[in-house]
Amino acid sequence: MKAEIITIGDEILIGQIVDTNSVYISKELNKIGVSVYQITSIQDDKEHILEAFAAAQSRVDIVIITGGLGPTKDDITKHTICEYFNDELVFNQEVLDHITYLFKEFVKKPLLEANKTQAFVPSKAEVLTNRFGTAPGMWIELNQTIFISMPGVPHEMKGIIEYEALPRLQKRCKLPFIQHKTFLTYGMGESAIAARIETFENELPETVKLAYLPSLGRVRLRLSSQGNDKEVVEKAIAQQTKKLLPLIDDIFEGYEEEGSFEENIAKMLVTQGKTLAIAESCTGGNLVERFTAKPGASKYLKGSLVTYATQSKIDILDVDPAVIDKDSVVSAKVAEQMAVNAKKLYRSDIAISTTGNAGPTKGDSDVEVGTVFIGIATESGVESHKFMMGNHRERVIGKTVNKSLELLKKTLID
Amino acid sequence: MKAEIITIGDEILIGQIVDTNSVYISKELNKIGVSVYQITSIQDDKEHILEAFAAAQSRVDIVIITGGLGPTKDDITKHTICEYFNDELVFNQEVLDHITYLFKEFVKKPLLEANKTQAFVPSKAEVLTNRFGTAPGMWIELNQTIFISMPGVPHEMKGIIEYEALPRLQKRCKLPFIQHKTFLTYGMGESAIAARIETFENELPETVKLAYLPSLGRVRLRLSSQGNDKEVVEKAIAQQTKKLLPLIDDIFEGYEEEGSFEENIAKMLVTQGKTLAIAESCTGGNLVERFTAKPGASKYLKGSLVTYATQSKIDILDVDPAVIDKDSVVSAKVAEQMAVNAKKLYRSDIAISTTGNAGPTKGDSDVEVGTVFIGIATESGVESHKFMMGNHRERVIGKTVNKSLELLKKTLID
Repeated sequence: MKAEIITIGDEILIGQIVDTNSVYISKELNKIGVSVYQITSIQDDKEHILEAFAAAQSRVDIVIITGGLGPTKDDITKHTICEYFNDELVFNQEVLDHITYLFKEFVKKPLLEANKTQAFVPSKAEVLTNRFGTAPGMWIELNQTIFISMPGVPHEMKGIIEYEALPRLQKRCKLPFIQHKTFLTYGMGESAIAARIETFENELPETVKLAYLPSLGRVRLRLSSQGNDKEVVEKAIAQQTKKLLPLIDDIFEGYEEEGSFEENIAKMLVTQGKTLAIAESCTGGNLVERFTAKPGASKYLKGSLVTYATQSKIDILDVDPAVIDKDSVVSAKVAEQMAVNAKKLYRSDIAISTTGNAGPTKGDSDVEVGTVFIGIATESGVESHKFMMGNHRERVIGKTVNKSLELLKKTLID
Repeated sequence: MKAEIITIGDEILIGQIVDTNSVYISKELNKIGVSVYQITSIQDDKEHILEAFAAAQSRVDIVIITGGLGPTKDDITKHTICEYFNDELVFNQEVLDHITYLFKEFVKKPLLEANKTQAFVPSKAEVLTNRFGTAPGMWIELNQTIFISMPGVPHEMKGIIEYEALPRLQKRCKLPFIQHKTFLTYGMGESAIAARIETFENELPETVKLAYLPSLGRVRLRLSSQGNDKEVVEKAIAQQTKKLLPLIDDIFEGYEEEGSFEENIAKMLVTQGKTLAIAESCTGGNLVERFTAKPGASKYLKGSLVTYATQSKIDILDVDPAVIDKDSVVSAKVAEQMAVNAKKLYRSDIAISTTGNAGPTKGDSDVEVGTVFIGIATESGVESHKFMMGNHRERVIGKTVNKSLELLKKTLID
């Protein structure tokens, strides 16, 4: 089964928002064996929407539409759906009851006329309940193609996908099994890896695909396969994994499907009964944010001291000003003192620190832009590592966060 | 002039990466008067790429292609371009010289065979130099349509867009003027705003479009217009701005085009010669990260104490344990003490604090999930505000960050 996602709304096309909805939908569809063939973002324009619907219908079995279902006038999706399906809007009492309930319980304001219009849905559509908002989701079938239309507000869309769309798709369609296995590697570039695994790649069976995904100092290698027989697919992936793994043994960090670095670190900390503290300079809160983004961080995370100003490193983290004078604020000794003192202040078992110059200018230290030191303090002592992360600010920060997580994981394994 | 962006690569379609490239490209094209008509994401599949090229050519004047130009085998864009344009790859000495230079200066490793193949480009293409990587950008014209192909690695793509593609497009095409004006509002929902400005919206001239963009407790209203005469476009937007502004006077925060909340706060702090410190609990580093994401933060930002664990609030932020016992860790008094003590520790002029329960479970406090207190300490004292942010973890964090920025701006204005 192939799907196309159509996102409607000018805001994506003028670069005002990032299309995270499609990422979520693609991931969820893949899990149940629907492969996404195309993602199409178009404007709130009737003719263009009609054209995109027809093109998608000619290509795929399932068309997922997000956006353009709000109560305001720039949202024309519902009327365009009526035109495409030669249908008309009819009043739906159940939807109005749901909207009335949401207003009473959560909005705590009187219902507006604009909201009442949301109770009108195309007569050929089945309603997909929107638990978190007033615009209903819709399911319409036409000549073997399933159209699912949802509002673009992310948490409303997610609720409809999870509770309504996915269970119905699984019931309605005979879905194949899809498996991806993604190998996280570090310390080697895309071309060098490709040269090393060339024979493996040439010998891959047609049923297994390999992709290279480079990002912020790491390359991920993804093997993919699909088929109707789960066992056959799993066996194909397992066989190729067995061949690939010894070739990348020295640069292999783990499988992405088994969790991100930070998720694995969190698990290891909880299992080992250890707590973590962080002291950040150049990463400016990005490192701690990786941990607090997921619930449950309070089980192992004490917190992070973001000491951006040099004086704050002295005042709060008790870094020796003489060391800063002698070695500069971007130095091994400062990274080490930051880690040791964060560990002490937070009374944690492990502490990690970052100090560096992300650029574009040099700041309080004379070191070259891109120079970063990462310190790690544990019960058995402190160590620090120096890295040159290039001269692109965002990438220096991203690569430093990645490298910190790698070092932290290594520390927990040792 | 209309453009379509085609992104090639399975990683977007299986939900493994977010397509931030299209956001960047759309924003940059809009600035020079090229409107993006469609964004299409497709797989690394020859037939599909050919089909997408043809469809785009029938719709738009400029086709921007990203992805699929790496040195590895899953990247088939270049060969498919040759097929589409009935062309062949020819060796380009200048490209090889550039690749050799990059390897010598930055990679500091010997050139690989896979990299040498990158010096082959379609004979009909003009090379767009890739300053930050080995895969060259390409410019090919066919029947009045311009095709621009670039690698998908974000910073490489950005370099080609900025230094090569945009200047050439401006030289080659007669471009209209596009203006967007985006009104940041707060404290009122989409439907309520729509009801209030209904007459305004009905009376809008055809040349001006209005869009509602709701996100994390705020609604942005965007007026857009385009035309060949810059003055006419600017006048149309100015006229409608004059009509709209009095209608939303009480909920208006500023124009998005004049900078984000954090950028405006940064400017105000620098102008007023004030420094900022942050103490974060439930926002877990997200608040400080908004400031450190942009260079120059060290001019006004002292840092942030992310005290995630309750004990850390006592140990590091000197919050009174008796107050935590009596009022709970999510309370007005704790928020106030966090702000006051962060101000003291960092020796800043202003400090802002967040403490709340982002969920999904209750944690160290018995307050309802979604309860958040924000504290602000200044030279003239301390205050705190209570908010109910709903029960969706990510949204609680996002809305708390937004609300903190709003309060901070208000403090700086007063």
